[in-house]
Amino acid sequence: MDPLLRSELIRYGEFAQACYDAFDYDPFSRYCGSCRYNRRKFFASLGMGTAGYEVTHYLYATSNINLPNFFTKTRGPKTWSQKANWIGYIAVSDDATTALLGRRDIVIAWRGTATRLEWVADLMDFLRPVASEGIPCPDPEVKVESGFVDLYTDKDPTCRFCKYSARQQVLAEVRRLVEQHTKMGETVSITVTGHSLGSALAMLSAYDIAETGLDVGVDGEKVAVTVFSFSGPRVGNGRFKERFEELGLKALRVVNVHDTVPKVPGVLFNEHVPEFVRKLGEGLPWSYSHVGVELALDHKRSPFLKVTGDPSCFHNLEAHLHLLDGYHGSGQRFYLASKRDPALVNKACDFLKDHLMVPPFWRQDENKGMIRAHDGRWVQRERQKMDDHPPDMHHHLSRLGLDKRHQ
Amino acid sequence: MDPLLRSELIRYGEFAQACYDAFDYDPFSRYCGSCRYNRRKFFASLGMGTAGYEVTHYLYATSNINLPNFFTKTRGPKTWSQKANWIGYIAVSDDATTALLGRRDIVIAWRGTATRLEWVADLMDFLRPVASEGIPCPDPEVKVESGFVDLYTDKDPTCRFCKYSARQQVLAEVRRLVEQHTKMGETVSITVTGHSLGSALAMLSAYDIAETGLDVGVDGEKVAVTVFSFSGPRVGNGRFKERFEELGLKALRVVNVHDTVPKVPGVLFNEHVPEFVRKLGEGLPWSYSHVGVELALDHKRSPFLKVTGDPSCFHNLEAHLHLLDGYHGSGQRFYLASKRDPALVNKACDFLKDHLMVPPFWRQDENKGMIRAHDGRWVQRERQKMDDHPPDMHHHLSRLGLDKRHQ
Repeated sequence: MDPLLRSELIRYGEFAQACYDAFDYDPFSRYCGSCRYNRRKFFASLGMGTAGYEVTHYLYATSNINLPNFFTKTRGPKTWSQKANWIGYIAVSDDATTALLGRRDIVIAWRGTATRLEWVADLMDFLRPVASEGIPCPDPEVKVESGFVDLYTDKDPTCRFCKYSARQQVLAEVRRLVEQHTKMGETVSITVTGHSLGSALAMLSAYDIAETGLDVGVDGEKVAVTVFSFSGPRVGNGRFKERFEELGLKALRVVNVHDTVPKVPGVLFNEHVPEFVRKLGEGLPWSYSHVGVELALDHKRSPFLKVTGDPSCFHNLEAHLHLLDGYHGSGQRFYLASKRDPALVNKACDFLKDHLMVPPFWRQDENKGMIRAHDGRWVQRERQKMDDHPPDMHHHLSRLGLDKRHQ
Repeated sequence: MDPLLRSELIRYGEFAQACYDAFDYDPFSRYCGSCRYNRRKFFASLGMGTAGYEVTHYLYATSNINLPNFFTKTRGPKTWSQKANWIGYIAVSDDATTALLGRRDIVIAWRGTATRLEWVADLMDFLRPVASEGIPCPDPEVKVESGFVDLYTDKDPTCRFCKYSARQQVLAEVRRLVEQHTKMGETVSITVTGHSLGSALAMLSAYDIAETGLDVGVDGEKVAVTVFSFSGPRVGNGRFKERFEELGLKALRVVNVHDTVPKVPGVLFNEHVPEFVRKLGEGLPWSYSHVGVELALDHKRSPFLKVTGDPSCFHNLEAHLHLLDGYHGSGQRFYLASKRDPALVNKACDFLKDHLMVPPFWRQDENKGMIRAHDGRWVQRERQKMDDHPPDMHHHLSRLGLDKRHQ
């Protein structure tokens, strides 16, 4: 395991983890389903300092789709939004990090579902051509799971936060950033990351960026697009995989061999069945294929983790980051390379051995975010400002020809 | 409902509630079973300011008794104490409060069990003469439940925190405080409070203070001893009740009519059965009687509380304090007299109606008390100092003749 690759993988994994840590899951909060922090203080609020990046955009999706178990909603009548869920962010490396990396790095991080795996049951296991969803793919046989594409392309004009689809938000912002930085003669890269359902969005959006031709600077130089995926499901069919590769996209998929999520959809027909069987299944709408290179980890090799039958532990992103830190090649002894704190594993699960004395599910707010008001009453903290979309968003979309219905 | 009585009841109830709020329940904490705060900062740490009182003593009990479900222990090998649990405190009113009350008030607050009602199953339902436990009662027929008296009188010489019994700790400190303040010519009162199992200890210790003759100042003046009990079980037999009254003790018992704890022990033979049946049962070791005056509340009268079948809600102390605030006499309309914050009800239960949007079980520490060390690792906060017993404790005990075994 190359030390640089390891640290890169952990770094981008932490960008995906930040989506969970920043998300408001509390059904008794009127900000339930939003990001708990202001965009400008995102990394600082998470105790990550500046992380070497600046968040430029928050991403939202609408809940009017067929993945009901993915969305989180308040129980109360007052809410920041009836329709939207915060689903990730776009960040760009600062000058110091850019100098270190040798390129201006645009990160797109997609939120998945932290522990609740019920969304898997909602997958329709039904493939739909990407071309029918406005992605300018010349091949009608390139298909992706319909739930993922819905999540990526649906919008609601009545909602301030999801009047643009996730797709529109990503493409407009990527275009703006690529243009801005290549204009200054900088080398630019795009790195897309996500865990679980967020990995599916990472694959799909990376593919879309390339297919739409946004991976080219004003100078005509190609911009490298890389996906770091963590415990991601399959996204599309065999043709999607081929097209993904044709476009020059690179993907590294980190999985735990005991996690079931990377095995769906396409449990029957996938990249593992013999070529001739796959050919037979190609016409069927449930023949899936993983893309990119897989890095298979095994949580049973970590001496820090206990024996459990809880599948949400096997799927947990912090557990994957811990496994990455201890991985030294297939069959090699597990030991922590960077001494990354194993306590992080139990942030949102119960996976560490008891004798380590790290409380399970320890990441929590003081008093669930309730504070004492001047009159002594316990109330929810008010938010100053909810980040939505920049005022010039429509301008960028129309330049891309993406300001029409169903984009 | 007299406004002064209401505010007194709520105030002493809050002193009992403070025992829950300050207790470390976390089995992954090595301070599990202790008080989370330093004695000198007790009320301030709980956001109660000074509360007008100064905590002079912390009370501990040993777990070597027949109430295993009452005790809370760490899972780890390192612990502040193998044997002890923090079980309450003694506080004395400051000068301003003393001036307001017209007396120097000594408060003894006993911790009960917040939500776990399993300890009720451990009750032996077996009465034992108090005289056999070193309480100088002239009547061998005065009996109390054996589990309560064990909790009150047991000790462990090998343990720094419970080398003295709860009884010894209370009597020595009460003696010291009564002597100190009556010597200065002050009027002194003793108020004992507790919820649930803590109520049983409140009744027992108040009775013991009077029976042992500590309710007399250096001037020979009688010191009033009052018990404010919240959802307490029965403590002793009919003779205990009579002796309690003979000694001039006053007790007010606040109960919720839907709570089962005040109905145990003595479900069959108690103060409700006709006189002649009780006489028959008197010789039996399971004939119990409540003491004092009962104030019966009904949680179904509060429009803030939802319909639930959870008995731990009916038993919850914060719910009782909420009901006290809205109670205006039997059959009267429920409305909040002091506008005490109803949100407090959900501190450690799920009892408020959902539309009030107060998260259930909202009282919690940030990150379960984990903090980030200088090296970036997440660790448990170290405690500076654990309060045990004052160095002159033995001196006070020997003056009382209480320095012998089995006191």
